[in-house]
Amino acid sequence: MLIESIHSPADVKKLSSADMRHLASEIRELLIKKLHKHGGHVGPNLGFVEATIALHYVFNSPEDKIVFDVSHQTYPHKMLTARAGAWLDEARYDDVSGYSEPSESPHDHFIIGHTSTSISLAAGLAKARDLLGQKHNVIAVIGDGSLSGGEAFEGLDNLAEQGTNAIVVFNDNQMSIAENHGGLYQSLAELRASNGQAPGNYFKALGLDYRYVADGNDVDALIAAFSEVKDIGHPVVVHINTVKGKGYAPAESNKEAWHWTMPGFDIATGARKSGEWIGSRVADHLLAKMQEHPDLVVINAAVPAMLGFDKTRRERAGRQFVDVGICEEHACAFASAIAKGGARPVWSVASTFLQRTYDQLSQDLCINNNPATILVTAASLLGMNDVTHLCWFDIPLLCNIPNMTYFCPTSEAEYFAMMDWAIAVRERGPVAIRQPENGVATNDAAILQDYSSCGYDITRHGSDVAILGLGNFYKLVGELADALAEKGINATLVNPRCATIIDTNTLESLKAEHKVVITLEDGVVDGGFGDKIARYYGNSSMRVLVRGAAKKFEDRYAYSSILEANGLTVPQLVASATAALAATRPQ
Amino acid sequence: MLIESIHSPADVKKLSSADMRHLASEIRELLIKKLHKHGGHVGPNLGFVEATIALHYVFNSPEDKIVFDVSHQTYPHKMLTARAGAWLDEARYDDVSGYSEPSESPHDHFIIGHTSTSISLAAGLAKARDLLGQKHNVIAVIGDGSLSGGEAFEGLDNLAEQGTNAIVVFNDNQMSIAENHGGLYQSLAELRASNGQAPGNYFKALGLDYRYVADGNDVDALIAAFSEVKDIGHPVVVHINTVKGKGYAPAESNKEAWHWTMPGFDIATGARKSGEWIGSRVADHLLAKMQEHPDLVVINAAVPAMLGFDKTRRERAGRQFVDVGICEEHACAFASAIAKGGARPVWSVASTFLQRTYDQLSQDLCINNNPATILVTAASLLGMNDVTHLCWFDIPLLCNIPNMTYFCPTSEAEYFAMMDWAIAVRERGPVAIRQPENGVATNDAAILQDYSSCGYDITRHGSDVAILGLGNFYKLVGELADALAEKGINATLVNPRCATIIDTNTLESLKAEHKVVITLEDGVVDGGFGDKIARYYGNSSMRVLVRGAAKKFEDRYAYSSILEANGLTVPQLVASATAALAATRPQ
Repeated sequence: MLIESIHSPADVKKLSSADMRHLASEIRELLIKKLHKHGGHVGPNLGFVEATIALHYVFNSPEDKIVFDVSHQTYPHKMLTARAGAWLDEARYDDVSGYSEPSESPHDHFIIGHTSTSISLAAGLAKARDLLGQKHNVIAVIGDGSLSGGEAFEGLDNLAEQGTNAIVVFNDNQMSIAENHGGLYQSLAELRASNGQAPGNYFKALGLDYRYVADGNDVDALIAAFSEVKDIGHPVVVHINTVKGKGYAPAESNKEAWHWTMPGFDIATGARKSGEWIGSRVADHLLAKMQEHPDLVVINAAVPAMLGFDKTRRERAGRQFVDVGICEEHACAFASAIAKGGARPVWSVASTFLQRTYDQLSQDLCINNNPATILVTAASLLGMNDVTHLCWFDIPLLCNIPNMTYFCPTSEAEYFAMMDWAIAVRERGPVAIRQPENGVATNDAAILQDYSSCGYDITRHGSDVAILGLGNFYKLVGELADALAEKGINATLVNPRCATIIDTNTLESLKAEHKVVITLEDGVVDGGFGDKIARYYGNSSMRVLVRGAAKKFEDRYAYSSILEANGLTVPQLVASATAALAATRPQ
Repeated sequence: MLIESIHSPADVKKLSSADMRHLASEIRELLIKKLHKHGGHVGPNLGFVEATIALHYVFNSPEDKIVFDVSHQTYPHKMLTARAGAWLDEARYDDVSGYSEPSESPHDHFIIGHTSTSISLAAGLAKARDLLGQKHNVIAVIGDGSLSGGEAFEGLDNLAEQGTNAIVVFNDNQMSIAENHGGLYQSLAELRASNGQAPGNYFKALGLDYRYVADGNDVDALIAAFSEVKDIGHPVVVHINTVKGKGYAPAESNKEAWHWTMPGFDIATGARKSGEWIGSRVADHLLAKMQEHPDLVVINAAVPAMLGFDKTRRERAGRQFVDVGICEEHACAFASAIAKGGARPVWSVASTFLQRTYDQLSQDLCINNNPATILVTAASLLGMNDVTHLCWFDIPLLCNIPNMTYFCPTSEAEYFAMMDWAIAVRERGPVAIRQPENGVATNDAAILQDYSSCGYDITRHGSDVAILGLGNFYKLVGELADALAEKGINATLVNPRCATIIDTNTLESLKAEHKVVITLEDGVVDGGFGDKIARYYGNSSMRVLVRGAAKKFEDRYAYSSILEANGLTVPQLVASATAALAATRPQ
């Protein structure tokens, strides 16, 4: 294959136009083959093959620095920068991450996985270059979906003022993960329709120079456009019109479904297994609730399918479902104000993306104490395991903001009960609920219906050791109790229900017959639930063992290894508990 | 005075045009009089007097809902909504807050103090209205400075798509707190120069309808414009060109200095006392460091004076000082990338505004582990005391993100030593330093120069009780030790230096001769430093007392009362420590 002769971008520069078109088809073939076996981002990569070849043909990476927004379109870039082996050889599929990764290659400058940051990062690289008296091109690659995030606006606005070399390749494939949302997209459509000439030009309004490429999958047109802006002395946007999913018919015809894929689809037809999962049950539950409450509105920032709201369900919900695009800050303030206005907002957001809106959670929502409901999805060590998408920092994020209540149900039944209560009750402050992840235990206890003043639920009374299993980790409690029973310890089991409630009555009552308390939480321990319990018992003789994940960035970890590394396996927990109990006995 | 006859907006509607002009001059007189005695926001209020009168003349508040961005321009609004007493009567000056406050009046809908949120909040109110089948106008008032924040872009973009009634009054006074920054401001200038006709229209590019009012301090012109858009069926921007500081000559001529004022200026001349303070010493120190390191760049988001970088110092710094405008997200990613590019970024940000960039701290900075330096200012219970500007949530915010190091110096000398080390050393990850606040003790111990692998500093060896006084609260340590000595307790004193380091050697060594550890931190305890110490000692017999502020929003508090309320006075601490120590003794 031609790709096997590409050892660095220098080899791309030797290719003829025909070679490059051939290379593009090889890249697509390799992409589909690995995606079929391995899963990953489909549409973003297929649409950006020619642009990647053209970038490496025109610019001199790594001296010229390319920053990819979200970096989910970097597979072709990786293939052209000495990492094609991770597509050519199935045994090496896991050699590379799904995102840009400086530890893999000098052609990658940042670890990136959240959107809308590339222009600010490119502005910083350009500023460093200018301060150090260097000369090279800095290029940001950003898609139309990412433009709806406020940080992309901030970056463009500042880049214009910075005034020195910076090239923004605006990859307009007319899709976010689902369809785009926002007034901006109408004026982008007008730019495309007018071959870049329409007067309502967002980029020019921000003071930026602008070029348009009508066919962003034509490698010759791209090379011409990039050559024209290479070494330019001021910031410029090169707007390229591409086809998301280009070259794979199923992905071209259903762009939303083929943004990303699990492995195992049928290559010829694109047929995929569909399965029952919690998302679709939640969506159906919310659709039913919308009938009951015409003022209930479900809000989501650009990942509606993560919530089970596929196209059909979005249509059924009508104006009671709002996708705001990729802008969690707006989503949070919007939800707070809807609650203030007397309606019932339910905002669903993945744990990792909740991070994008700390200040709005604090200022717009919690200071104002409005009764919005937040469903936090994928929040678990079982959630996404790329370092940029870790879903286990939400407990410290939410729990240290006053007025926020963060429920952590232990089962789907408990989750729906909490959700129903939150939707029904308006005399309350902000409530977030952590969607239980696969494999949570069904708590056999009767499910509480009224959470207005709930405390911890002691599900089994024992002595010596009390185990507080928060949310998803309640599932560890039963097994641990059985194992402790074998050591003659009859542990007390507790479902705390909520990460923000310190149930002092229960905690005090445990002092009478217990010497050790173990807290278990499915997230980072620093700043989390267990730390608050440790503080509570700090001025007492109670021993407290706080167990969860250590404060550390992990990448592409196995769930079982992270449990092991953090002393969360049942044998490890038994050993810790028995040792702690022994230490409390008079010598 | 005419203002005394205004009991509600209904009374404004009865006024003639001449009456309204007279009312405007009365409002200005009252503003200056109270500002002179009380301090507060000057320019934003003076410039928005006529617009406030016109809004209340045309619209029917509170049915029609006005949301003020930042809400630092709401003094005239408060006067017209039954709160003029708080300006007319010196004894009632403190009846109102400096921001919009629903508990004061039904004409205020949100507690707001951070910028760029008004459009998202208005969008939410409009959505609730539409869901509930109500009819009323929703109006957002936003200044040009606030437009540089990404959330304002997100709000505008979404408002356009929402498509129903919403009116954005864009108050363009050609100033942020200091001068504006960003490419957008050039196209806004072109709109003003062309009476709203220039083609590069940011709002139209986002799909919004648009009107222009050339003199935004002409109440008749404003009434005409607002009347035209009242009950409009789609979103519209009314761009009004106002004069910041209008009607008070010193404020008109020096807009940056008169954005906000302390009390006590000379009304006739505007002369104010200038004093030495830590900000100017930090700025001078950084200017000197810029000479030494031509690749050092100081970054700030729109509050350069908080860092001591007044106009003169900004000019001296040249390209080594960057004000990015109000956009902390960009500032954070920009700083990370400058560090990655090989230069030395120092980003200064107030504790309360650091909250606006959690995700960039985590993703762009900490995951990438780049050696940027952050100076966190005003971070203390002694910082700003409005509920929207609390400066004591930064420890949990920063300390629970992996790879972040958060130094908390106890004195100015230690602060500069840490800063110098951070600027000099590039082989490190992200470092934040908490600027010491007024009144911190000078730590007599020799100041460490190399912080590469520092641990806690035991400044006095004692027994039984060890006191860990973090940063600003190290000042409590000496007094507490003296008071404990009177009870026969010879306490050990520790300067932990850093909120993110758990110095296990020191903590273990304390076990030998101590039974009680007290942690003191100048911030909220939840998720902070003390919680980590409590967890560390959780599985031991050490008693830990964690002291700081309770997790609770406080508004306009007195420093002394918040210490008292949290058991932080020396007598309270002595009582807690002696009781804890007594409890460890065999009965």
